[in-house]
Amino acid sequence: MTKWVYSFGDGAAEGRADMKNLLGGKGANLAEMSSLGIPVPAGFTITTEVCTYFYENGETYPDELKAQVAAAMAEVENVMGAKFGDAENPLLVSVRSGARASMPGMMDTVLNLGLNDDTVNGLIAKSGDERFAFDSYRRFVQMYSNVVLDIGHHHFESILEDLKNSKGYTLDTDLDADDWKGMVEAYKAEVERRLGKPFPLDPEEQLWGAVGAVFGSWMNQRAITYRKLNDIPADWGTAVNVQSMVFGNMGEDSATGVCFTRDPSTGVNRFYGEFLINAQGEDVVAGIRTPQPLNEVEKAAAKSTLPSMEAVMPELYGELDAIRDRLETHYKDMQDMEFTIQQGKLWMLQTRNGKRTSQAALTIAVEMCESGLIDKAEAIRRVDPAQLDKLLHPMLDPKAEKKILAKGLPASPGAASGQVVFSAEDAEKWSEQGKKVMLVRVETSPEDIGGMHVAQGILTTRGGMTSHAAVVARGMGTPCVSGAGDIKVDYNARTFTVAGATVKEGDMLTIDGATGEVILGDVPTIQPELTGDFGKLMGWVDEIRRLKVRTNAETPLDAQTARKFGAEGIGLCRTEHMFFDPARIIHMREMILAEDEDTRRAALAKLLPYQRKDFEDLFTIMAGLPVTIRLLDPPLHEFLPHSEHDMAEVAKAAGISVDAVKSASARLQESNPMLGHRGCRLAITYPEICEMQARAIFEAACAVTKAGGEPVVPEVMVPLVGLFEELDMLKKVIEGVAKTVMAEQGVTLEYMIGTMIELPRAALQAGKIAESAEFFSFGTNDLTQTTFGLSRDDAGNFLKAYLDKNIIEVDPFVSLDRDGVGELVRLAVERGRAARSDIKLGICGEHGGDPSSVTFCHEAGLDYVSCSPYRVPIARLAAAQATLGGASGSTK
Amino acid sequence: MTKWVYSFGDGAAEGRADMKNLLGGKGANLAEMSSLGIPVPAGFTITTEVCTYFYENGETYPDELKAQVAAAMAEVENVMGAKFGDAENPLLVSVRSGARASMPGMMDTVLNLGLNDDTVNGLIAKSGDERFAFDSYRRFVQMYSNVVLDIGHHHFESILEDLKNSKGYTLDTDLDADDWKGMVEAYKAEVERRLGKPFPLDPEEQLWGAVGAVFGSWMNQRAITYRKLNDIPADWGTAVNVQSMVFGNMGEDSATGVCFTRDPSTGVNRFYGEFLINAQGEDVVAGIRTPQPLNEVEKAAAKSTLPSMEAVMPELYGELDAIRDRLETHYKDMQDMEFTIQQGKLWMLQTRNGKRTSQAALTIAVEMCESGLIDKAEAIRRVDPAQLDKLLHPMLDPKAEKKILAKGLPASPGAASGQVVFSAEDAEKWSEQGKKVMLVRVETSPEDIGGMHVAQGILTTRGGMTSHAAVVARGMGTPCVSGAGDIKVDYNARTFTVAGATVKEGDMLTIDGATGEVILGDVPTIQPELTGDFGKLMGWVDEIRRLKVRTNAETPLDAQTARKFGAEGIGLCRTEHMFFDPARIIHMREMILAEDEDTRRAALAKLLPYQRKDFEDLFTIMAGLPVTIRLLDPPLHEFLPHSEHDMAEVAKAAGISVDAVKSASARLQESNPMLGHRGCRLAITYPEICEMQARAIFEAACAVTKAGGEPVVPEVMVPLVGLFEELDMLKKVIEGVAKTVMAEQGVTLEYMIGTMIELPRAALQAGKIAESAEFFSFGTNDLTQTTFGLSRDDAGNFLKAYLDKNIIEVDPFVSLDRDGVGELVRLAVERGRAARSDIKLGICGEHGGDPSSVTFCHEAGLDYVSCSPYRVPIARLAAAQATLGGASGSTK
Repeated sequence: MTKWVYSFGDGAAEGRADMKNLLGGKGANLAEMSSLGIPVPAGFTITTEVCTYFYENGETYPDELKAQVAAAMAEVENVMGAKFGDAENPLLVSVRSGARASMPGMMDTVLNLGLNDDTVNGLIAKSGDERFAFDSYRRFVQMYSNVVLDIGHHHFESILEDLKNSKGYTLDTDLDADDWKGMVEAYKAEVERRLGKPFPLDPEEQLWGAVGAVFGSWMNQRAITYRKLNDIPADWGTAVNVQSMVFGNMGEDSATGVCFTRDPSTGVNRFYGEFLINAQGEDVVAGIRTPQPLNEVEKAAAKSTLPSMEAVMPELYGELDAIRDRLETHYKDMQDMEFTIQQGKLWMLQTRNGKRTSQAALTIAVEMCESGLIDKAEAIRRVDPAQLDKLLHPMLDPKAEKKILAKGLPASPGAASGQVVFSAEDAEKWSEQGKKVMLVRVETSPEDIGGMHVAQGILTTRGGMTSHAAVVARGMGTPCVSGAGDIKVDYNARTFTVAGATVKEGDMLTIDGATGEVILGDVPTIQPELTGDFGKLMGWVDEIRRLKVRTNAETPLDAQTARKFGAEGIGLCRTEHMFFDPARIIHMREMILAEDEDTRRAALAKLLPYQRKDFEDLFTIMAGLPVTIRLLDPPLHEFLPHSEHDMAEVAKAAGISVDAVKSASARLQESNPMLGHRGCRLAITYPEICEMQARAIFEAACAVTKAGGEPVVPEVMVPLVGLFEELDMLKKVIEGVAKTVMAEQGVTLEYMIGTMIELPRAALQAGKIAESAEFFSFGTNDLTQTTFGLSRDDAGNFLKAYLDKNIIEVDPFVSLDRDGVGELVRLAVERGRAARSDIKLGICGEHGGDPSSVTFCHEAGLDYVSCSPYRVPIARLAAAQATLGGASGSTK
Repeated sequence: MTKWVYSFGDGAAEGRADMKNLLGGKGANLAEMSSLGIPVPAGFTITTEVCTYFYENGETYPDELKAQVAAAMAEVENVMGAKFGDAENPLLVSVRSGARASMPGMMDTVLNLGLNDDTVNGLIAKSGDERFAFDSYRRFVQMYSNVVLDIGHHHFESILEDLKNSKGYTLDTDLDADDWKGMVEAYKAEVERRLGKPFPLDPEEQLWGAVGAVFGSWMNQRAITYRKLNDIPADWGTAVNVQSMVFGNMGEDSATGVCFTRDPSTGVNRFYGEFLINAQGEDVVAGIRTPQPLNEVEKAAAKSTLPSMEAVMPELYGELDAIRDRLETHYKDMQDMEFTIQQGKLWMLQTRNGKRTSQAALTIAVEMCESGLIDKAEAIRRVDPAQLDKLLHPMLDPKAEKKILAKGLPASPGAASGQVVFSAEDAEKWSEQGKKVMLVRVETSPEDIGGMHVAQGILTTRGGMTSHAAVVARGMGTPCVSGAGDIKVDYNARTFTVAGATVKEGDMLTIDGATGEVILGDVPTIQPELTGDFGKLMGWVDEIRRLKVRTNAETPLDAQTARKFGAEGIGLCRTEHMFFDPARIIHMREMILAEDEDTRRAALAKLLPYQRKDFEDLFTIMAGLPVTIRLLDPPLHEFLPHSEHDMAEVAKAAGISVDAVKSASARLQESNPMLGHRGCRLAITYPEICEMQARAIFEAACAVTKAGGEPVVPEVMVPLVGLFEELDMLKKVIEGVAKTVMAEQGVTLEYMIGTMIELPRAALQAGKIAESAEFFSFGTNDLTQTTFGLSRDDAGNFLKAYLDKNIIEVDPFVSLDRDGVGELVRLAVERGRAARSDIKLGICGEHGGDPSSVTFCHEAGLDYVSCSPYRVPIARLAAAQATLGGASGSTK
């Protein structure tokens, strides 16, 4: 026979802490505490399997359940010395949900269950407080009616309001026992009026009504939404905890409180909490009365004038403090506890791993490890990589008021404020005048790099997590919100409108790149502090992880930042970003507009010294670490001028007419540039571009080697290969240049030639391609685009609908799609290694900084991941967790 | 020991006709003829393996070759009763290339080899003609010097010119024996002057020089280009045939000629050929003298006044005619033969399967089958599907002069002429005035459908073989040349320029959609004739093929055309094409511009009756055959108006401002529409579109069923699925509508719901998707785009470079890429069938009409292919050939 019900109480329990899947978090921990001999009001847990049964069988229960519940109730009665439904010595119970993962406030709870016109008299007798008893009764009627019978709170509140008005009361405390008694009657009458039948007075009926309501609440909209946001599967189900009531509001020797074994904000190892004398649990949470500090240290720190528990109930405080030690040592993690003192006796109502700030998570993990409570592996598991991200960026002051205008995608973390400008030029102009600017664009393009660099933050109304704005901002560590589609930008008017509001150029705007919020005005931010704990944890992380972590960087600043964050090389240097400097773009444009090879070569010759210098700088900074350089990738029209002024300039430089520039520009336009003349296709049609870049790479490597720097091993990467013939042809070109340059310079270099795997065909043909390629770098941005047939620049609008309708769980540009893109990656790894056993394998898409994707890369057997500089620590941590077999999830 | 040399002659041979790979076509057939006892001048063949050895070993020969050649030469000497290099009785030989596939004129030949100052005397003695002997000698010196010593013909020709001038001669025939003798000396002196060493007089040295030159010519630029154009692998190599010379110019009892066993133009079973008395082979080809007809029938048909061979050499003609019968019966195919008569003796120099016109190929195959020479399977193998294509479309009169302006892609076969117009509107306007128009556009869009329909032909300057213009034109059977990138259109001036010429609106222009040629003026065309042979062959084809053939059609006209061509259902009805009619587009636009669901539904309700009528028509025409209807696929902005007038109209209809239309239009613009908000993504975001279309389909099916038509089994196809959740959700929507409509109409319908597999992810997830999908239709256009990361609209420019540089062999939009796209298709077939064993599998991309791709579909185990109406017969034939294991290739 299936066991559907697990009892606990009186120093024993049928369940254990590790039975969370069956008993839910709350039930498992109540059982565990009870087994530890910690005072827990007796009760029982109806398992999550009942919930599953309930939904699989048309909302009915297993046959055996009734009997098992009755038996468990009898045990509770026995332990507590009271009887459920008994008029003289009534047992009252709470009925609460309790899922495997905490879903605070999402599901229903009924307290004081078992009260009726008879048992209320028993409560009066036991408490000696008639007013308390009737107040409890009316609270029960209201709560039960709301939760089980679906009658809104406001109906009851207006009855109470009416009474207070008629009697001239202002506060609830003005009501006496008779008033509350009258309220009970009025509430019951209201229920009967609305339902056409009386409020259920049979405690048994009440119990099953409440149990059904809790199971039912698993599928309410709030709970569904919460689960979706927190990746909790619907089939986990919830347990139901039925537990005897204890009252913190039975006089001055009663109290209730919540506490943490350590400070959840800072992580400092100090007992932290709040309590209220003569109050119920919800009073602490509701914030009607100001809670008192738990102890004297806390009181001093909070500058409270209220007496502490340590002072007014020293004995009980001592008891609680001992339980704190007991639980933290037992659970080996910071605990979040609830307690109630009923007439001088301490009862523990809940314990669970406590939520904490990013800073606290780090501090607690490191301190617990150093004190020997947990080992390094566990300390590493305890820190969520996403939390680490927050530690590296400024965040909004949580106390500040926020007028949220819109929400976009959290494209690059950190919070920032600035005056709104609508063009990159203005951003640069205003910035030179000492102003802090917020760059607002429909979307950004490589031309906007200058303005993006000086902006405090970037807001776009189109494009996803891997749009140009998002990628560049993350690389710079600049906060960015992308794809805020509700915002309508009017470039001509220099305004944007959203939800009826109009924001003008020059207005202050704040964005939170960690949440995607767009906020009117200048919201204060808090700067991150990197403590010694960060360095310690990262040291442990590096001992454990197998995956190397490189960075995507092309500027000296990015490269330096990344090394500071522990990057072990450059996995992706996007050479095209180097051509937008005003001194260079003009030659780039000459090159593009060239009508023949000689003119093109002449323009390329002018670009060569710049490129060589770029690479010299990078090689010097990376000091012997590997540097992967991708050849020119984007379609050429991205470099062409748009404004009349720029067109005139380039026409002059190239010695052609403005009309010729315009018509060349029109000719280069493409219907789907993502699938157009780009990547290695440029080098196939114009091998001289590839030659110039290869020459710059090898000349720079020779120069750095000659200057006595660490030996440089450049990795030349050919992008967008779909056919092995493409790589073959370009490999020959690159090898030819390498040979020539080495002969010219009298230096012998090691180097590698490889390719990005970013097209499905390349993944399928990986075996053939690996015959030429010495390394693969998976370009999972483009591979996601082509595998899904999904443009990252256009997906913003409808991906939201996909998430809302539960068609996808997560944006595939954020977390690598294991089923589709992942299969191609695994297949390419397998075929590539079969053809060339020592092939070097890495990833350089944006997924390289996403913890779940890093785990995938570890499992797929890659050698390294590469990500933007600010994500390097996240990737390091995620890589270590992947080696350990995943994060503990305790703090999520 | 490897046998490198194969002898033939005197009624015997070491080789056979089926040894083409080793001996080349010419050598194998010479051997075969010799074995048959047909008179062939003795000789030997140096195998293609020597060619391979030659290139793999630094242009050297196998050690044993010299001895084997010497032995073979001795045999020839023996048979011919003459001796190579003998001054009294010299054997002269020809040295010719002979590859596995015919490469006419691409490689080198040396005739009269073995002549020198001594042997020429022997030739004089044998022929009794001193002038003939010295003429032959000087011809040899010139030819050898050109082919082997790389001295241009013009050097020799100017020497001859000088002599003629100095002697006052006008014709070569004015020169006497002494003149030619002098020429020999002058030529040899010229060689020595240029090379610094004398012309080689040693016959042995001459022989090896010529052999080396023939092998060397395998890698000359002409040969490389020819192989690329004809898909001949470089590693096949060529053989070298050394054969004793016979002379057709040894007097009036000598002659030379070429003949076909049947008429190669019409296929009529009539001996056909030409000959010249006292002439060499090249004289027939060169066209200096007018050749004489072979027989009296031919003479009458050609209205020739010259005497026929039948009349002047009746005995030899009889001998030749007998050989004709012998060879055709033996080879079971129409033969193209060369013969020479030397002093009254007939020698056969070559036989091979003859090239023929499309019409002839069909006629010959059918006649040979009916006469019992070949069976039906062989008859089917004999007709190239590409030839069939030509039979279905008008073609340019081959005799007409053509001023070719440019060459684009052969996007839709057939030739057409018309007056140039630059907009679809003008096309319609001019056409209403009774003018024939040629629509010239940079590219076309669905808006242009009306103009495309009335145009004689369509020319675009951008876009590939599967661009909008190409696909639509093929569907309509309208000739189209696409992607003619050299043509620059100026819409404002209403002109286009190309290669210095300017063509104005109203000028006559001709295009040949089978070759891609764009021709100035009105070139006469020949209408195709579909003979009874076509019907017969198609009947045999249908008996044999396993693959079904459906059509891509959405108009009644297309559907009717396709049925006429034997389509067995509709494999792809693209519903979006139905919305461009002026009466409908306005409602379509209202739908797109709707700001809320109600407004959208109201607009859709107006479209419903049109859609229903469309489907009723199609179901009625297809009379019980399956019809696959694809739900709305393209991005919505494709339907939006571009002109101010159209915008005003739609604004009025939708009750919004023109500015609102403009801004909605701007909002819907996408960076990469191919990867954007389209396909099932539309139906996911706006399920009401899917509901309307499903309703139209099921209401139409009910109506046709009620009207007593054949039972209709609609196949509803959801496009662009990448996630099985997409199909799941839409399947529910469609099933819901089906249930409702069947209840409303009181009709029970069978129907299927399936999807296009057109994204790599869909192919990978085919197993999961097949849990919902009852059929897969491979959309290989889009699958090619995403697998390669290649936009068919943008690929035109650089794919040319890819073909030129040999990086790809064939445009992957024309012939399905077996390695990449093909692997995905095979994988999806396997996974789909594993999940649902009776899943119906087809292809509906443009590849469905490409013979090589049809073969792939057969091999991959698909159930059907679907293609545009005019390609249905091609697909039927290709499917039959695939069943038979490939075309014979005899006529290629």
